[in-house]
Amino acid sequence: MRPFVAWLLASFAVGCAAPAPRDPLPSWNDTAPKKTVIDFVTRVTTAGGSDFVAPSERIATFDNDGTLWAEQPIYFQFLFALDRVKTLASQHPEWRAKEPFASLVGGDLKAALAGGHQAIEEALATSHSGMTTEEFARTVKEWLATARHPKTQQPFTRMVYTPMLELLDYLRANGFKTFIVSGGGVEFIRAFAEEAYKIPPEQVVGSVGKERFEMRDATPVILKMPGVDFIDDGPGKPVGIQRFIGRRPIAAFGNSDGDLQMLQWTCSGSGARLCLYVHHTDGDREWAYDRASSIGKLDQGLDAARVKHWTVVDMKTDWARIFAFEPK
Amino acid sequence: MRPFVAWLLASFAVGCAAPAPRDPLPSWNDTAPKKTVIDFVTRVTTAGGSDFVAPSERIATFDNDGTLWAEQPIYFQFLFALDRVKTLASQHPEWRAKEPFASLVGGDLKAALAGGHQAIEEALATSHSGMTTEEFARTVKEWLATARHPKTQQPFTRMVYTPMLELLDYLRANGFKTFIVSGGGVEFIRAFAEEAYKIPPEQVVGSVGKERFEMRDATPVILKMPGVDFIDDGPGKPVGIQRFIGRRPIAAFGNSDGDLQMLQWTCSGSGARLCLYVHHTDGDREWAYDRASSIGKLDQGLDAARVKHWTVVDMKTDWARIFAFEPK
Repeated sequence: MRPFVAWLLASFAVGCAAPAPRDPLPSWNDTAPKKTVIDFVTRVTTAGGSDFVAPSERIATFDNDGTLWAEQPIYFQFLFALDRVKTLASQHPEWRAKEPFASLVGGDLKAALAGGHQAIEEALATSHSGMTTEEFARTVKEWLATARHPKTQQPFTRMVYTPMLELLDYLRANGFKTFIVSGGGVEFIRAFAEEAYKIPPEQVVGSVGKERFEMRDATPVILKMPGVDFIDDGPGKPVGIQRFIGRRPIAAFGNSDGDLQMLQWTCSGSGARLCLYVHHTDGDREWAYDRASSIGKLDQGLDAARVKHWTVVDMKTDWARIFAFEPK
Repeated sequence: MRPFVAWLLASFAVGCAAPAPRDPLPSWNDTAPKKTVIDFVTRVTTAGGSDFVAPSERIATFDNDGTLWAEQPIYFQFLFALDRVKTLASQHPEWRAKEPFASLVGGDLKAALAGGHQAIEEALATSHSGMTTEEFARTVKEWLATARHPKTQQPFTRMVYTPMLELLDYLRANGFKTFIVSGGGVEFIRAFAEEAYKIPPEQVVGSVGKERFEMRDATPVILKMPGVDFIDDGPGKPVGIQRFIGRRPIAAFGNSDGDLQMLQWTCSGSGARLCLYVHHTDGDREWAYDRASSIGKLDQGLDAARVKHWTVVDMKTDWARIFAFEPK
């Protein structure tokens, strides 16, 4: 019995000692970016320290596509628009002779996109207007519940990055208010952000389509109209932050040149700041792309990060796990 | 000693009994509106009750001018604009020959306003553009620290309604997130909302001026430009709510026809709802105005409130105290 008792006592002693602090970012390797993040959070939350920031000022903004979830082979919102066009085609016989609809319905994405920006805008307008905001949110939710990613066959809401979910939780546990600031449509992102990221609708900033309030048989509705009122991308991101949030963030996270101005705005404020780029370097587990990519191009941003000493996450090296569905 | 001991024991007994629940709305008389408000909050917060609402859905929206603070003899933001024009006049000798500036600087408000909407817009554009967002916020704060209301001689931030401050606190103590949804300029309101109402910048929705991000000597700034991008008034209020908050409120508070659509939108949702109009009926302690007023006109709204059984606060009858500076 003696050895067992000794073991038992030892176990209790271990059990009663102060537990080792739980790693807040278990999917991050112990490389420089993880240390930078934890050091920053420790400094701004240490009461009495020279870098302490009041909780109300702990605003963190996250790009969505390519930063919180994947964006290849093309923005998921665009895949939603394509599926909507196919679904609606039976009600629009005239589309058989009209581009980009004819090619889209026939499954020829390349031909459909030959019309360039205008073709994309027509497809987006068709799928994103002509209904109430509540009908639109329902449509997005139904699509997300059934659609699958063309490469991984996973639901799109599982294409979120586990390390970034941990980072969101870690920041919130330290008194941060976390916002999405995305070039994507605000109504599209709000349809899943609360469930996928624990970010409520009122903390999602995005591009904004035209909307109109009207009475329908004595019931008020808000209608989504064709046309865009605000593009929350590039220099639009700091403007969107000012407009919707009204405070300058102290931490900002992005992955492309479209996030450059958000990072510039965030990190030119006084006091401790954290600007971080996610660099897509893992062609096996995710995708590898940067300066030459048409989706999520990261070129000027990569240069700026070097000059400004911003943090750059090398997905291949710095993340132990990217997606929750990866084999362990 | 005996009576004293008895008194002492009795005092302790009283001290130890469950305290009477503190009145959450002490500046409200015990008339119908107070009962309606408390009944609504009790119902939506009673777990297991048929009217229970999850905390994340407890969104309450408040108009500002005439609902949270006074709006007579004219919107305070306009008085700020007038003072700015006077301050800036020395840098603009050309204004001596240009309306509405010449009359404004000369103190002839009536002559200045003879130019109608265009004159007002010119005065607003001059005082609300051509500077960075940070410079503008500083200017508003400096003005609020020194300017006085023409009738009461009080700082404008003391022209807030004590019963509404109690209501904001009461709702927040019951898990509500409180938002301002105002026709006023969002940057103007944010400059004082946190201190005056405990409402942080990211929970202020208002009219939005044009803004531009640019680099100034390698430092990023956001410039306020002439022109308006979004008017958060009338049918713009539900659109602003959808755009900035992304959820339909379950409670809304206003005082004019400009709030009508916000109340319609709020109270046409399903489940328990509270729509409340503040009716300015006290010409002694505040101002008395409604259907015929050019500022804060309440006409259609008063009819709608009757038909829809919304709550109408009669300031004279229902509020025991309006301003904190009133003699007790």
